[in-house]
Amino acid sequence: MEHLPEANSTRGRGFPEVISNLPEADIQFKGVRAWILQGEKQQLVFFEMESSAKLPEHSHDYPQWGMVIEGKMELTINGKPRICEKGDEYLIPAGEKHYARFFTRTRVIDFFSERNRYKPKPAR
Amino acid sequence: MEHLPEANSTRGRGFPEVISNLPEADIQFKGVRAWILQGEKQQLVFFEMESSAKLPEHSHDYPQWGMVIEGKMELTINGKPRICEKGDEYLIPAGEKHYARFFTRTRVIDFFSERNRYKPKPAR
Repeated sequence: MEHLPEANSTRGRGFPEVISNLPEADIQFKGVRAWILQGEKQQLVFFEMESSAKLPEHSHDYPQWGMVIEGKMELTINGKPRICEKGDEYLIPAGEKHYARFFTRTRVIDFFSERNRYKPKPAR
Repeated sequence: MEHLPEANSTRGRGFPEVISNLPEADIQFKGVRAWILQGEKQQLVFFEMESSAKLPEHSHDYPQWGMVIEGKMELTINGKPRICEKGDEYLIPAGEKHYARFFTRTRVIDFFSERNRYKPKPAR
């Protein structure tokens, strides 16, 4: 049984078109791009961060589940920093303050129990 | 900077409620459960497989992107087996036959560019 990490992998190449064809989120932070899978009452957001990106501290009144796909970030929840790398999951309870910084180009997915966490970019 | 793998982690505990509260998919394969985030033209499906589960060979005419969250599976695409573990991504091109088997309890997400890949379980 072979281990073929490169076969059918999208590693190092960003999200495949099936995802980057989704509506892009209207995000003002430098070095952050994201694409929205819009659910009826939820959003699943595919994020791509440059290493220079910073997500400033914020909180919201619903929980957030997420996971790092590729890269490395420091996620600080309620003052407690944690390093998250490929495959690391996190659950941010409702109301808890959190922010993140990145050590390299990083891809993440986040699930928000909220219909309108992000808006799509307006059409040009 | 501490590495706190357990803090805010859902590792080993299955999906958090924000996800298992989604509509459960109507899946007939033994040892497989899944929850659907329904998009307008896509589905993002959160899978949980027992080690005894098998997903038999099939194909569909749209690509599928996915990633292992926890566990270990052998994914065979077009006759080529590949071991996928935590954080490993895969892209299954449209039309390519694929099947999977599992070495342990495994959680996976899959993104289908198709509105009706899975149906929700009928209400009881």
